[in-house]
Amino acid sequence: MAPGSEDDMNALRVLVADKQAAVDRQSNEVRALKAAKADEVAVNKAVNLLKDLKLELQSISKELVSKATGGETSVLSRETFRKTLSNTLERRLFYIPSFKIYGGVAGLYDYGPPGCAIKANVLAIWRQHFVLEENMLEVDCPCVTPEMVLKASGHVEKFTDLMVKDEKTGACYRADHLLKDFVKESLEKDPLMPPDKKEELKHVLAMLDEFTAEQLGAKLKKYGIKSPETKNSLSDPYPFNLMFSTSIGPTGLLQGYLRPETAQGIFVNFRDLYYYNGSKLPFAAAQIGQAFRNEIAPRQGLLRVREFTLAEIEHFVNPDDKSHPKFSTVANLEFYLYPREEQMTLKQPVKTQIGHAVAKGIVNNETLGYFIARTYLFLARLGIDKERLRFRQHLQNEMAHYAADCWDAEIECSYGWIECVGLADRSAYDLKAHTDMSKTDLVAHETFSEPKDVAQLLVVPNKKELGMFFKKSAKMVQEALEVMEEVEALKMKAELESEGMASLHLCTTGQRVTITREMVSISKEIETLHGRTFTPSVIEPSFGVGRIIYCLFEHCFYTRSSNAGDDQLNVFRFPASVAPIKCTVFPLVQNVKLEVTAKEISSALTREGVANKIDITGTSIGKRYARTDEIGVPFAITVDFDEKTVTVRERDTKAQIRVPVEEVAKVVNDVADARRTWIEVQSHYPGVMSKDSNQ
Amino acid sequence: MAPGSEDDMNALRVLVADKQAAVDRQSNEVRALKAAKADEVAVNKAVNLLKDLKLELQSISKELVSKATGGETSVLSRETFRKTLSNTLERRLFYIPSFKIYGGVAGLYDYGPPGCAIKANVLAIWRQHFVLEENMLEVDCPCVTPEMVLKASGHVEKFTDLMVKDEKTGACYRADHLLKDFVKESLEKDPLMPPDKKEELKHVLAMLDEFTAEQLGAKLKKYGIKSPETKNSLSDPYPFNLMFSTSIGPTGLLQGYLRPETAQGIFVNFRDLYYYNGSKLPFAAAQIGQAFRNEIAPRQGLLRVREFTLAEIEHFVNPDDKSHPKFSTVANLEFYLYPREEQMTLKQPVKTQIGHAVAKGIVNNETLGYFIARTYLFLARLGIDKERLRFRQHLQNEMAHYAADCWDAEIECSYGWIECVGLADRSAYDLKAHTDMSKTDLVAHETFSEPKDVAQLLVVPNKKELGMFFKKSAKMVQEALEVMEEVEALKMKAELESEGMASLHLCTTGQRVTITREMVSISKEIETLHGRTFTPSVIEPSFGVGRIIYCLFEHCFYTRSSNAGDDQLNVFRFPASVAPIKCTVFPLVQNVKLEVTAKEISSALTREGVANKIDITGTSIGKRYARTDEIGVPFAITVDFDEKTVTVRERDTKAQIRVPVEEVAKVVNDVADARRTWIEVQSHYPGVMSKDSNQ
Repeated sequence: MAPGSEDDMNALRVLVADKQAAVDRQSNEVRALKAAKADEVAVNKAVNLLKDLKLELQSISKELVSKATGGETSVLSRETFRKTLSNTLERRLFYIPSFKIYGGVAGLYDYGPPGCAIKANVLAIWRQHFVLEENMLEVDCPCVTPEMVLKASGHVEKFTDLMVKDEKTGACYRADHLLKDFVKESLEKDPLMPPDKKEELKHVLAMLDEFTAEQLGAKLKKYGIKSPETKNSLSDPYPFNLMFSTSIGPTGLLQGYLRPETAQGIFVNFRDLYYYNGSKLPFAAAQIGQAFRNEIAPRQGLLRVREFTLAEIEHFVNPDDKSHPKFSTVANLEFYLYPREEQMTLKQPVKTQIGHAVAKGIVNNETLGYFIARTYLFLARLGIDKERLRFRQHLQNEMAHYAADCWDAEIECSYGWIECVGLADRSAYDLKAHTDMSKTDLVAHETFSEPKDVAQLLVVPNKKELGMFFKKSAKMVQEALEVMEEVEALKMKAELESEGMASLHLCTTGQRVTITREMVSISKEIETLHGRTFTPSVIEPSFGVGRIIYCLFEHCFYTRSSNAGDDQLNVFRFPASVAPIKCTVFPLVQNVKLEVTAKEISSALTREGVANKIDITGTSIGKRYARTDEIGVPFAITVDFDEKTVTVRERDTKAQIRVPVEEVAKVVNDVADARRTWIEVQSHYPGVMSKDSNQ
Repeated sequence: MAPGSEDDMNALRVLVADKQAAVDRQSNEVRALKAAKADEVAVNKAVNLLKDLKLELQSISKELVSKATGGETSVLSRETFRKTLSNTLERRLFYIPSFKIYGGVAGLYDYGPPGCAIKANVLAIWRQHFVLEENMLEVDCPCVTPEMVLKASGHVEKFTDLMVKDEKTGACYRADHLLKDFVKESLEKDPLMPPDKKEELKHVLAMLDEFTAEQLGAKLKKYGIKSPETKNSLSDPYPFNLMFSTSIGPTGLLQGYLRPETAQGIFVNFRDLYYYNGSKLPFAAAQIGQAFRNEIAPRQGLLRVREFTLAEIEHFVNPDDKSHPKFSTVANLEFYLYPREEQMTLKQPVKTQIGHAVAKGIVNNETLGYFIARTYLFLARLGIDKERLRFRQHLQNEMAHYAADCWDAEIECSYGWIECVGLADRSAYDLKAHTDMSKTDLVAHETFSEPKDVAQLLVVPNKKELGMFFKKSAKMVQEALEVMEEVEALKMKAELESEGMASLHLCTTGQRVTITREMVSISKEIETLHGRTFTPSVIEPSFGVGRIIYCLFEHCFYTRSSNAGDDQLNVFRFPASVAPIKCTVFPLVQNVKLEVTAKEISSALTREGVANKIDITGTSIGKRYARTDEIGVPFAITVDFDEKTVTVRERDTKAQIRVPVEEVAKVVNDVADARRTWIEVQSHYPGVMSKDSNQ
């Protein structure tokens, strides 16, 4: 986590001090009551209040510690938090291990009803925020992909992890995971280890992603690392391709894979999309869809899975002009950037204006900067905590050789900083790779605003002369002359002029031949060009939808004490646009008349397009509120015996207002769709003082 | 196509006669003008009008023929229509053959920008119409599925087509396709074929789906059918499994498949979903997602593909009560039903009230009837022509043995009647299959409203007696007694009472043993039951999203003559909710001021969530309208030099109104979202008489 600003920290410190004072006062109060043998009700009330205050104090203190240490909260509290959260997520079916009744399959998860609704909402917001607002060309390509496409993209050769096998059982492990586990355990178990040994292990950790198969194998050997369950010997590490492989059609001859990303579907359609866009650059294409990664040994629950949803954008630009017409609309936005240099010098990420970062060249160009900013706005809109979001630049060795610049949107959660969005300027690499493999030109054409005069080298071999002299080899010599690089040709021109002859290397045979002045004419001529054909650069923002949703779960989850103070209640503070259900409708008690009104309100909500749920069980209203808080429903309507108005209760503040029956569906729809704020609505309608502070 | 009603037909006949008269009049006019050597402009005008009238006549005549013959329009006109349509769909990137630059892969298609937007809109409408309005539990499960799940469902064994191989080249063909092609060709080539031969071939066509591998093989042999390209001999037909197979994880030991349907993901989660629903029936779960079918030889373009999107519902009910609380809301709906009996007696589908069909037992139960009606409403809402939509009941031999009733929503298109939605009452089959395979009870519990007295059979073996007599075999005999069916036990009871002994068959060994009165007591006792545990029935509506979209393309596509009358312009009459873009914004000519206003209007539309596109090319406004008509954009806003108002033009009527600049975004949003109708809006704002009738 990026450490909080000094102002935030000071505010928090004041809060902690205040709350501590309140706790002390209340402790005294309780002691006094008990000493005075006050009646039980009064004592209990005081005790409950004390409990509440202590919990609040604990919560703020945690926040302060977390902010101050830049996220170095104890592993223990992270694990407790994650356990409470996971328990809620699984119990309320946000997700379900897939094929659970058959024992499940590692790395495969289902979204249950609330998870599925959140996913649909997140994708709808993504579509509005990117496809609609930026006028992108959305496409939808199949998961099943023929080998040729993934050969061109490099995935057949390079989409691998290094694997070792238990030599007896055949069990498979990721080589880097075994080494990492060993190193971490060694460092934890033996804090008094000699400094040089410690340094060595830390270096191993830092280099983990860089090791070749041979280097990893050497380390495993050096530390005597064995198969974790059996302690058997391990094979040498070797690359395992992470694509699910399949066969297309009945012959078994057409090798296919499940796509590891959606991007290739866009690249292979570049020519059609460019034409569709009126043969104009820049334009962006987008795709939402499933992608697959046959992990060797999935870890980290929902963060590393074998099938996941990606939302990817490929923005095609003229490599000579990566400005963005709408950059000025985001230039003043400020958020955490973590540039390469700050990482190398072990500094912390700093809140930076994106306009400043682009101007200083920290971010390579406006278009990349624009997408970083739009990604920031998107994540914030979903409810990701801005203080736990940073954009980290790839180190030079992390980037592919062709990439101009890469930034990851990283979100902090209990697993640490997680890469959720990758934003890369991939230059012309992908289009060139498919041009080469498919022999189809994936290029754009630019007409110059005014014609340009360009000096062109002209090499004209004299075929007759060459034929007479070189006989059968004449053609080869002619070709060698024609393909000379400019430097080489100019050198020959100079030599021919001064010496009358020059030496030429025939790369096909390795021979050298002598060229005379008569055999070739070399000149530079001015040509007037009206335009040019080039391969566009591509800037690729790629969103891991499942990871973003998981981080959102963590950032929106909190607990508060129950009515009686003896229980922790779970709440998700999802924004209404993300919440799986926007509103619940409760008849206060089981009663036909109340149920009829509740059903009418529910129907009215449905007509307005507001996802809602009616709960006619006789459970206490407090419990029903708690149940829906736990899946993050922002509003609840309670129908009681007042025939004209109903109660609307907001989830986080627990504030309640009375709204006329015939207006309530529209009011809730307006607030859920952000046409009005809750504060606004609250000031319009009379409030309700709840007798029960936890409703 | 269902033949049109008599009223419709008469109306059409009148139209044709009127139009014919208009054509005749105009022909005379043209002749008169030419004879009088009138000036060129006047002649051209008259000629163009004549062309228009002729085209309109042609179009209405076609419609009449099509309605009168129940769709038996000539194959030729269907093919022409399809060619025009496909050309438009491919040229405007509604879809693109996947991996086109690599030569494509049969049966794989991409949705390009307009297709993708339509798909997203159709799915959003589906979610609103089913998930939201019916409060379904939506889930999202992976495509990659372990073998066990698909063994339980029967797909590993039975999801096959019969295939033959060219014995020399190894090329694969669907056996039934080869036979069908041969028969159809024979019937066409030889219309004078002897009647008995003709009957035989027609019988083969009718039975095509019913043949076993052996029967198909015999037919292929009988007619001497060879490999179509090489004329080589063919192998015998054998079943080819249509699932794409893959391996999960690195060991190669966990066999997986790409799911052939999304339904299984719901069934395996039944227990959790039932609990999530408060352990109450009925409830429905739904899933939208990719499914896969490794076709032997894909045909019929977008209708039979290897990867497609399904939207499936599994509605779980108590098998003893398949009533539906909302059935009365749809009971009066009337649409084409094609029950089994009408098909067997070669009658035509008839418009029937669904309430009537359920009451008469034609449709098995209210819940199935409810979903048929809701499916009808959904398809009509999308823009499917109600006259070319029918619900066809499965014949007895088409249905799985366990199914209680099945109906397909079939939509007529140029390929004939296409199954687009399957609606099946699958009884308890799926849940039982997974209960058996997973050893996890997928059951529901019902508490009776009042306790029920039920006669229970009680078979109590006398272990001591059996032991003394049968020694080592005693246990086997005891078990055989305990598992007796009620009929068998009652027969034994009667025999023991009358004869003192009875014979018992031990199925494990095949022996018969003699049981005496002392060895067992058999009685019927009354037990008071307070509830029961049972496997729910499931009613499954399953939507082939791609097929529906393709049929929608066909139903919404029409052509009209261009401005000059010399060109056919293509139009898609998509409802606004389905249209890929709701509105285009055109500056009338290239001019900075107009462009600024146009951009402001476009931004306002985007803020309102209206998908829109701005076109600032200098092309004539008529051409720009034609371009957007061709992708089905319902509204176009044209900005001219009037600073206060702009023109809004509707696609199908080509009617235009003037709307104030600051109101236009809201007006278009209201009409696009169906909060107001175009007619309503038209009456509010002044109309424009277009000088150019084709704008």
